[in-house]
Amino acid sequence: MKELGKRVLAGDIRAASRLIRNLEDQITDTYIAIQEIFKETGKSHVIGITGAPGAGKSTLTDELIAAYRKQDKTVGVLAVDPTSPFTGGALLGDRIRMLRHAEDPGVFVRSLATRGAMGGISKAVGEGIHVMDVLGKDKIIVETVGVGQQEVEIINHAHTVIVVLVPGMGDEIQALKAGLMEIADIFVINKADREGAGKLYKETMNMVQMSRDKYGVSKGWVTPVLLVESVLEPHKFAESVEVLRDKIDEHYQFLIDNNLISERMRRKTAAEITEAIWGSVLAPVLEQLETSGEMKRMIDRCLLKETDPYSLAEEIAQRFMKQRPGTS
Amino acid sequence: MKELGKRVLAGDIRAASRLIRNLEDQITDTYIAIQEIFKETGKSHVIGITGAPGAGKSTLTDELIAAYRKQDKTVGVLAVDPTSPFTGGALLGDRIRMLRHAEDPGVFVRSLATRGAMGGISKAVGEGIHVMDVLGKDKIIVETVGVGQQEVEIINHAHTVIVVLVPGMGDEIQALKAGLMEIADIFVINKADREGAGKLYKETMNMVQMSRDKYGVSKGWVTPVLLVESVLEPHKFAESVEVLRDKIDEHYQFLIDNNLISERMRRKTAAEITEAIWGSVLAPVLEQLETSGEMKRMIDRCLLKETDPYSLAEEIAQRFMKQRPGTS
Repeated sequence: MKELGKRVLAGDIRAASRLIRNLEDQITDTYIAIQEIFKETGKSHVIGITGAPGAGKSTLTDELIAAYRKQDKTVGVLAVDPTSPFTGGALLGDRIRMLRHAEDPGVFVRSLATRGAMGGISKAVGEGIHVMDVLGKDKIIVETVGVGQQEVEIINHAHTVIVVLVPGMGDEIQALKAGLMEIADIFVINKADREGAGKLYKETMNMVQMSRDKYGVSKGWVTPVLLVESVLEPHKFAESVEVLRDKIDEHYQFLIDNNLISERMRRKTAAEITEAIWGSVLAPVLEQLETSGEMKRMIDRCLLKETDPYSLAEEIAQRFMKQRPGTS
Repeated sequence: MKELGKRVLAGDIRAASRLIRNLEDQITDTYIAIQEIFKETGKSHVIGITGAPGAGKSTLTDELIAAYRKQDKTVGVLAVDPTSPFTGGALLGDRIRMLRHAEDPGVFVRSLATRGAMGGISKAVGEGIHVMDVLGKDKIIVETVGVGQQEVEIINHAHTVIVVLVPGMGDEIQALKAGLMEIADIFVINKADREGAGKLYKETMNMVQMSRDKYGVSKGWVTPVLLVESVLEPHKFAESVEVLRDKIDEHYQFLIDNNLISERMRRKTAAEITEAIWGSVLAPVLEQLETSGEMKRMIDRCLLKETDPYSLAEEIAQRFMKQRPGTS
């Protein structure tokens, strides 16, 4: 694994692909490779793109790659796929729409169809970002489908967060927006030719305004709301995405100029440490219980009501843990 | 906490509300109350409802409550709210649309706006189900907003899973459906008066058929696809939801008659044990690192590149863990 880290450091694309595949498979000693490359990380600008399914994030990402390539910036993309809990398979594959960049050595697109429970996805994303970072990508785009808690965790790894909204998604989206308000650095209203786009724009602007009133403008960044034209007019689409690109870079520059980048870096690092601890402390315990067949026996005992999950968990903690925080 | 468990067992609604509030706040010794009630659980039929934001799940849940009340069945509802990572606040509150049931003692609705990282949400849901179960609710509906991995984990706690689709949500939804196919026991096409409902119905039916071809019909249950009429016609809406109610009960009866209920119970219990171990092993470690200020210092060291999250996680594991699975 250390060797794999060294090869990635040397710019070996095949090694990078293999390492990302290992992250996805949650191979336990992958951390050794990431450990190896960590010191060289931190140079890329990480851009998170999130929003509800159907909001057109993949198309937007594809166009954003093109917009950055126009400026000769190199781009890495980590597309987080929703996975099935049973097959663990990727559903969207390597995002068909991005295939036009497949031949471009300045673009590196990988899907992460991370499986497994509780925290594994966000962990793999944080590590995948490091891999693309040491490959020297100027911009790393993390695209995640969804608007749940999990997506918020994933987005913690980004410097600049784009939330994509789309007209006609009903009331719940409005409520979600209130939560997204706090994580969004830029709102994009996609499919802006659709009915209801004007209304959505106004509502989002109002929410940005309310948020300014609530939190003050001390942080100085007023979350912009950008309208992106329909894909039915390719030229206009490209143009509006170039406006988005410039706004993204403006946000990054703003973070740097105002000494706010360190705050983002802290958030990123906090997420990473937490996820690494998950990988070192909890994941091996669960894995052993699974492979030894003990999990199966524990399930049987609970079903017979001989015991309960909480007593079992306490037993496990006592068996595996040297020190019990909070119980001393 | 044990006392709180005993009061819930005695049917004390205020104690139940308090316990659910504690679960939501992830108060660490809450497990003692759940331990106390566990033996009395397992009597309720747990129904999971999931789907993309804007799919109309709350309205559907509200009508489903009414449909069950018509039959004098008692209903508990756990509505999982998307939360902000910063304020941790509930966004949707106690689902405004369900307020019409507020005065009905046969209905117990609670929102779970669970906060905190990595697994806490699903854990609170599993425990909240137990609370409603010992209160004697015939049906427990778990409504979760979203279609990510997190939602799939939550839905593991259900016997019968309903996936709500809605016309006009774009391509990604179609891809997601493939993943949802494996968890769905019943598909509901909501807002069936909208343009594209017929197309969505056909596509979903095709997918069900393909899935039958792939997995065979050995399990005997053919996932039905139900069309639910628009809320613009209240009478028709109620009628179509009564059809859904009967289909849900048919599925539960099918599980029982075919001895498949134990498989669902295993899945439920496996999720619960995993989450309890998370609560006993990982959560206290993270909490101590946070409260002692060590997390802050670790972040500083990583930012200075003095160390990396993976080496730190290994140190933490060595400090806290007696036995290192997989390293022996």
